[in-house]
Amino acid sequence: MSDDKQPLINRLKSVEGHVRGVQRMLEDDAYCIDVLRQTLAIRRALEKVDTLILERHLNTCVTDALRSVDHSARDNAIAEILEIFAATRD
Amino acid sequence: MSDDKQPLINRLKSVEGHVRGVQRMLEDDAYCIDVLRQTLAIRRALEKVDTLILERHLNTCVTDALRSVDHSARDNAIAEILEIFAATRD
Amino acid sequence: MSDDKQPLINRLKSVEGHVRGVQRMLEDDAYCIDVLRQTLAIRRALEKVDTLILERHLNTCVTDALRSVDHSARDNAIAEILEIFAATRD
Amino acid sequence: MSDDKQPLINRLKSVEGHVRGVQRMLEDDAYCIDVLRQTLAIRRALEKVDTLILERHLNTCVTDALRSVDHSARDNAIAEILEIFAATRD
Repeated sequence: MSDDKQPLINRLKSVEGHVRGVQRMLEDDAYCIDVLRQTLAIRRALEKVDTLILERHLNTCVTDALRSVDHSARDNAIAEILEIFAATRD
Repeated sequence: MSDDKQPLINRLKSVEGHVRGVQRMLEDDAYCIDVLRQTLAIRRALEKVDTLILERHLNTCVTDALRSVDHSARDNAIAEILEIFAATRD
Repeated sequence: MSDDKQPLINRLKSVEGHVRGVQRMLEDDAYCIDVLRQTLAIRRALEKVDTLILERHLNTCVTDALRSVDHSARDNAIAEILEIFAATRD
Repeated sequence: MSDDKQPLINRLKSVEGHVRGVQRMLEDDAYCIDVLRQTLAIRRALEKVDTLILERHLNTCVTDALRSVDHSARDNAIAEILEIFAATRD
């Protein structure tokens, strides 16, 4: 996971700034719908981060686990993906 | 919107700290699935903020708009709710 | 709700046919990803139905409730919208 | 995919009946919020079907693809999972 983590960290720094921006909007009594548009944009940005992390996870840990002869490692890798898949919809 | 905005700002400060925590997890090469669990928790926290903002919006702006004799104000208020409803699923 | 319900019923008839189509795909041992693409399309079609129903609801029942002097009718209308909004994300 | 497809087909038959039930609700001018509660329940049922299909897919096709020496098969399997993951949120 170490190689290409900087782009992910940069995306999260941007999310952090975005969250601070929404706090300022609330302090300035911005229109509710405009605030909601910004929090939705933050969730979209987090979803993009999730997709990138999942992609890396599938290419590394999951590939190793599914290639392994260790059945419990394989079952565990699949159970974790299904857990994230289910939680993503909630 | 001015009355009870402090609890919302506090929730967003907490989200901001959570996002910084995920950056540290990435720097420390945390396990991908553990990182995803945290970003999902952040999205849940943002959804709670959205629900509170929408509740306030319905109780104030939307109530005023739907009581108004101004048809375009009413149509606009409804169109905005449908926009947020559709975007929430995306 | 009686006026324009036929377009909604037609959309649901189409969803029903789509669901039967997925059953046939399973019987014919279609590729899993192709099946998932179809079930996702069905969910998108149901979301469109939901948006149309919500739009009508806002234009009729909610408008009446928010214009009413009855506080509990108004509170109830808002609570129901928030319930649907929260459930939509789940 | 052939072994345990009958439980999935049964779930989809149940979804189909549920969709017909919502058509009847519309014909009988049921309350909008009650209709929305049912369409949300249908989407939940479809999500459960999706999770079961994805589980099977990970245990069969994806396991085979990730174990294969064929790089393009492996890349393709991962790209398809990411596609479904992204579409699920939309």
